[in-house]
Amino acid sequence: MKNTGHQKIDWVSKHMKLLNKIQNTSEYNLSGLKIGMSIHLEAKTAYLAITLKKLGAEVVVTGCNPLSTQDDVAEALKDFGVYVHAKRTESEKEYFSFLHMVLDYKPDLILDDGADLTVLAHTERKEVLENLKGVSEETTTGVRRLRNLQSNGILQVPVIAVNNAKMKFMFDNRYGTGQSTLDSIMRNTNLLIAGKNVLVAGYGWCGRGIAMRAHGLGAKVMVSEVDPIKAVEALMDGFEVGEIEKLAPKADFIITATGVKDVLNKEIINKLKDGVILANAGHFNVEIPMEEIEKMASEKYEIRQNVTCYRINNKDIFVIGKGRLVNLAAADGHPVEIMDISFALQTLSLIYLSKNYNKLERKVYDYPEELDKEVAQMRLETMGINIDKLTSEQEKYLREF
Amino acid sequence: MKNTGHQKIDWVSKHMKLLNKIQNTSEYNLSGLKIGMSIHLEAKTAYLAITLKKLGAEVVVTGCNPLSTQDDVAEALKDFGVYVHAKRTESEKEYFSFLHMVLDYKPDLILDDGADLTVLAHTERKEVLENLKGVSEETTTGVRRLRNLQSNGILQVPVIAVNNAKMKFMFDNRYGTGQSTLDSIMRNTNLLIAGKNVLVAGYGWCGRGIAMRAHGLGAKVMVSEVDPIKAVEALMDGFEVGEIEKLAPKADFIITATGVKDVLNKEIINKLKDGVILANAGHFNVEIPMEEIEKMASEKYEIRQNVTCYRINNKDIFVIGKGRLVNLAAADGHPVEIMDISFALQTLSLIYLSKNYNKLERKVYDYPEELDKEVAQMRLETMGINIDKLTSEQEKYLREF
Amino acid sequence: MKNTGHQKIDWVSKHMKLLNKIQNTSEYNLSGLKIGMSIHLEAKTAYLAITLKKLGAEVVVTGCNPLSTQDDVAEALKDFGVYVHAKRTESEKEYFSFLHMVLDYKPDLILDDGADLTVLAHTERKEVLENLKGVSEETTTGVRRLRNLQSNGILQVPVIAVNNAKMKFMFDNRYGTGQSTLDSIMRNTNLLIAGKNVLVAGYGWCGRGIAMRAHGLGAKVMVSEVDPIKAVEALMDGFEVGEIEKLAPKADFIITATGVKDVLNKEIINKLKDGVILANAGHFNVEIPMEEIEKMASEKYEIRQNVTCYRINNKDIFVIGKGRLVNLAAADGHPVEIMDISFALQTLSLIYLSKNYNKLERKVYDYPEELDKEVAQMRLETMGINIDKLTSEQEKYLREF
Amino acid sequence: MKNTGHQKIDWVSKHMKLLNKIQNTSEYNLSGLKIGMSIHLEAKTAYLAITLKKLGAEVVVTGCNPLSTQDDVAEALKDFGVYVHAKRTESEKEYFSFLHMVLDYKPDLILDDGADLTVLAHTERKEVLENLKGVSEETTTGVRRLRNLQSNGILQVPVIAVNNAKMKFMFDNRYGTGQSTLDSIMRNTNLLIAGKNVLVAGYGWCGRGIAMRAHGLGAKVMVSEVDPIKAVEALMDGFEVGEIEKLAPKADFIITATGVKDVLNKEIINKLKDGVILANAGHFNVEIPMEEIEKMASEKYEIRQNVTCYRINNKDIFVIGKGRLVNLAAADGHPVEIMDISFALQTLSLIYLSKNYNKLERKVYDYPEELDKEVAQMRLETMGINIDKLTSEQEKYLREF
Repeated sequence: MKNTGHQKIDWVSKHMKLLNKIQNTSEYNLSGLKIGMSIHLEAKTAYLAITLKKLGAEVVVTGCNPLSTQDDVAEALKDFGVYVHAKRTESEKEYFSFLHMVLDYKPDLILDDGADLTVLAHTERKEVLENLKGVSEETTTGVRRLRNLQSNGILQVPVIAVNNAKMKFMFDNRYGTGQSTLDSIMRNTNLLIAGKNVLVAGYGWCGRGIAMRAHGLGAKVMVSEVDPIKAVEALMDGFEVGEIEKLAPKADFIITATGVKDVLNKEIINKLKDGVILANAGHFNVEIPMEEIEKMASEKYEIRQNVTCYRINNKDIFVIGKGRLVNLAAADGHPVEIMDISFALQTLSLIYLSKNYNKLERKVYDYPEELDKEVAQMRLETMGINIDKLTSEQEKYLREF
Repeated sequence: MKNTGHQKIDWVSKHMKLLNKIQNTSEYNLSGLKIGMSIHLEAKTAYLAITLKKLGAEVVVTGCNPLSTQDDVAEALKDFGVYVHAKRTESEKEYFSFLHMVLDYKPDLILDDGADLTVLAHTERKEVLENLKGVSEETTTGVRRLRNLQSNGILQVPVIAVNNAKMKFMFDNRYGTGQSTLDSIMRNTNLLIAGKNVLVAGYGWCGRGIAMRAHGLGAKVMVSEVDPIKAVEALMDGFEVGEIEKLAPKADFIITATGVKDVLNKEIINKLKDGVILANAGHFNVEIPMEEIEKMASEKYEIRQNVTCYRINNKDIFVIGKGRLVNLAAADGHPVEIMDISFALQTLSLIYLSKNYNKLERKVYDYPEELDKEVAQMRLETMGINIDKLTSEQEKYLREF
Repeated sequence: MKNTGHQKIDWVSKHMKLLNKIQNTSEYNLSGLKIGMSIHLEAKTAYLAITLKKLGAEVVVTGCNPLSTQDDVAEALKDFGVYVHAKRTESEKEYFSFLHMVLDYKPDLILDDGADLTVLAHTERKEVLENLKGVSEETTTGVRRLRNLQSNGILQVPVIAVNNAKMKFMFDNRYGTGQSTLDSIMRNTNLLIAGKNVLVAGYGWCGRGIAMRAHGLGAKVMVSEVDPIKAVEALMDGFEVGEIEKLAPKADFIITATGVKDVLNKEIINKLKDGVILANAGHFNVEIPMEEIEKMASEKYEIRQNVTCYRINNKDIFVIGKGRLVNLAAADGHPVEIMDISFALQTLSLIYLSKNYNKLERKVYDYPEELDKEVAQMRLETMGINIDKLTSEQEKYLREF
Repeated sequence: MKNTGHQKIDWVSKHMKLLNKIQNTSEYNLSGLKIGMSIHLEAKTAYLAITLKKLGAEVVVTGCNPLSTQDDVAEALKDFGVYVHAKRTESEKEYFSFLHMVLDYKPDLILDDGADLTVLAHTERKEVLENLKGVSEETTTGVRRLRNLQSNGILQVPVIAVNNAKMKFMFDNRYGTGQSTLDSIMRNTNLLIAGKNVLVAGYGWCGRGIAMRAHGLGAKVMVSEVDPIKAVEALMDGFEVGEIEKLAPKADFIITATGVKDVLNKEIINKLKDGVILANAGHFNVEIPMEEIEKMASEKYEIRQNVTCYRINNKDIFVIGKGRLVNLAAADGHPVEIMDISFALQTLSLIYLSKNYNKLERKVYDYPEELDKEVAQMRLETMGINIDKLTSEQEKYLREF
């Protein structure tokens, strides 16, 4: 019988059809390159590392978030010849020591998730920049950090913002975060969604996905936003829109997906319903103000696996996954097929960087459109779907009319 | 630190607001009565047993399905003074021995889930009928079995078909089964629902709920039915309707909710997609023909917790929870609030039987409408919602017009 | 070029596939019978009359609502050999004179919509009861009136409540009223539905259909109800539920579908939003209190075809179709295919009455289940859809288990 | 009693709250400028012209599509001091003569819809370029034409692509086209949408909106696309995706929204279902190949207002609105509030051009983001909705993290 780490990798390998296709296509090659990865280390990212390894690279991996590493998977991954420096429930200090270990390999390419590895390479560990050819960054938050590096003149390598790929932000952040956030909330609470008031803070792609799925499960969805255009969109999508201070006290569930810190403040927390469930779907654990909540609580205990009960003003405030990314800290992360798409984008972006790094500037690039379409086309093929092509007359019409 | 059984009961006790209200309302009373219960023994049903106990009854509990008992909850339940005879992974033989132990108490009232306890009382254990005053039955399947007893002249006590309560079949079977079935599939597979072909076999209330939630998660839903009226309804709801033989080979997920056996046959199984996921949401584990599948498979192994991989004709067929009720065998059952409603109905039905049994005939009764509305009103109150009342002029209009 | 009445009938004849099938099936026969019909006289009902005529009956038709008769269709219908006594914008007095004319024919069977014809036959025109063999009634409201006749001992003939057919109330009242009510509101106002607050008064089948479609068009739906069970259902369906007094002032659109009168009162009307749109989807024009509104208004004028603007407290209150059934008074009524189903039920019910009237009691009968399934099966066939049948083993399982 | 043109303008004036707000805000000013407009001339665009006039401009208007001018509105508009050269059922020749008349005024600014006016100014009527300061263009198609002018070095003035405003393409093309296309189909056919197979050709913003609304009305939606990314998105949204040749023969309704010509070809037309309904939601009437259909038909007649029946191979093919933009040619165009948003964008864009034209280049500009947000904010205000603002700490976090 396989151990659980191998079992999990086996399962995802059966459903990551794009990575399988890439592994079996000779034009995709990474021979002779060292790749440093900082990722949420679970079965799916493990299969990405395995894929890069199979394409010829030397691969070294660490986690990108202290709580998201699955130890059984980390162990199993080593059996595939990947170097792994990661473990769960690690301290912040340990976490950073692992980042350093990855940089010790002097990677040619970095695959980053949140930009911690790349920022470190540009600050404390500048010696690794010598060999570094490029970075592929996964998240909105990471891209923002790297753009800040760029605008401050610090960035020394080309970066590809995978998050800007249409096949990423239109899918991962919407269908992926949408499903997995609600999955996590349901499995960790066993509570009914139908008929409940669900407040989604933030109506970017993640927030849209969460709102869509909460609504699809029968909730009455409320949305708070700071961007008036997104606010109008949420309204048109049939949701109640307003100030968070007004909406939060009506909520049975509050899900944060804003990208900023302190989405709730002390005043709002004092007005929450008895029994409200809080969950964070943003990258960093700063959206729900955990320190403030800890200070306010007269009592605190784990009432269900992954659920902490805080007693505040004689009311129960329940927080899932300690305010960390709820689909990763308290569930299995994005659905397998979503990650398959994102990782196909990542792999093609690394290959692209390895071929073109010396032609590229030291800046953050949008994801190349032709790679984006290549992945989309691959996805359709693996699902057995053919689509139309413009006829030459139609192309002529578009050009000339 | 509480053990996990107590912790789970603690969690549900915070969300079963109808049972809490009933416990705190003096007009609800079961003093001096012995109640035998056969139920899926987990935290929520445990809290029902506790509620009946708090209303003054002596309560004895067993499971209603070999795989659905949670041992930690069973242990914790004993601390509340409830007699418990149940454990998980029990053999069929053990399972029946527990049913017998419950009947050994000579209960005044039976609360049944699938009718095993009541059928036993009317066949092998007729001596218990002497003291038995009535039965409250939860499921469609159980009610059908008891109606068969009645039409064969065997039934000796009044039965209330809780399943026929509007607050039950319109909610439990639809919003409860709907959410929890998809929850179970998502948590056990980590696969994407959006864009997938989901075949729902059966478009009764359960099937409708499953279809609604699969659709709400972005699936393309297909429905098979034997009743032409339900088939037209599924069509009008926007789903593809057809013969299962034609639909199954296109499906990525097949979910059975028909109430009959052998929904798939050998011929259809041979045509399924590589990688298809099978799950059963019907009461008994006869809908997916597990024996047939076992025979057909060249290989069989557990590929993920609760997921068995069968290798048939070089294709992978994945079955969740061994073909048993997927939301119970491989997840936490219905959402807490749904069970709260159903158990409020159960409790009121037991009180009703205890007061009226000597006026009632030996037959299966529909759920009394006034109790149904009482529970609905209670639900609205616990959610803080007021609704309109007809004015006397409006009542006059309805009578006279 | 055909005139518009013939053109309209031509159009519906191409889409009423069940009536076409019935016309072409020799077992369906009404030879030698006189049938009096009171219906919303437009193309679809005209085609029902034509169908009955083609099956051999002598048919006489009037309207069932002063405003719903389309004169061009009434004219064209005469060309098919049907007797027609109806015209639009008729006075109440004229309307009743037409009802009398229909009864003058001493019909064998009445096909009623609202029960006006049948009530008249049992009160002022008792002499026609002599020849009357049975009544087929279409609406909820009509059935309630006839049940009142029955419980007061007045009813003299068997009545079949077509409205109680599953193929009727599950479809006509939900998908039919749902679509056509929103269609009427959109075409008569050209206003956006998405993001608007739509209050649906009443959550019966009609209300559910309206809520479903308003929601499908992007509205935030609110529901008022007097039945707590239906109120809980509306909640679970994701809608806001509350007292109409609280909800109405937030509404951009208010749609009544309750079956009772005076859904809004003076106090509520005073609190409505400036620019609110009122529409009635209930059978009788009593739900919106038009007299009260007329009294309250300082000004009144037609601002758009079918839309009246009332100026009350310096606010504009817009009423579509004068408070009459909005899909008929201000649009084309139910979609063609919905009426096709209902009229197939009607036709089969008339044939059933003609064969069985002497075995039936003087009461209101539910719609015979076998006819209901016959129509469902016919509908599937005309759409080219096959469904499963239970195997003999499955039937055995259902009987014996 | 007002005539119908004035009545229609009166109605929209009550619902165009952004234009009303702009009229009443002194900072918005267009004094002393001549504005030439080419628009679908109906009540809403008339109210835009009136608004520009009230801001101080001299305004001259013509239609942008031969069939979309409403004569009663055109007449009424003259009473507001606007110069109007337009009438319905005009010939192509007349249509162009009206365009010329507008250019005869030598406008300072052009507000274009499809770019006919601007193209004419850059080809046959170059003398008007002397006074022309800028162009505001509404449609995707128009923008593409103007980008072609730009890339060929022909464009002589700055153009603002209003279509690229988020408040335009995210709303007008989705919620506007979505609702009004389905509204038009329903009102012109009276057919049921629920349970029908609706094929949407093109999954741009228009196609998405149409698919969303067809789905919201209960249809099974199929999508054809040439862009693989959009195709994957349609899949994830739960729709069937494939080649049009495979999908079209299953469709009950086919709605084109591609922006290219000849979406259907002869071969596909030969395979369509008897009774299929064709409608075009793209800007130009080239998507449905009307000439081809005319040639193929053995018979052709108007079977219902706005619906032409073509008899091809003994099957009926129904085309709504002659293949022209179905929501304008056969209904009332976009909902009022959608146009209100678009016209607020237009108005602000004209004011912006009037202030900045001498700083701008001869190219097509994206819509200025600050104006976009200004309109969004205005929309929220008119709906009485407040939203959150980032705190200074949150802004700091976004900058620094």
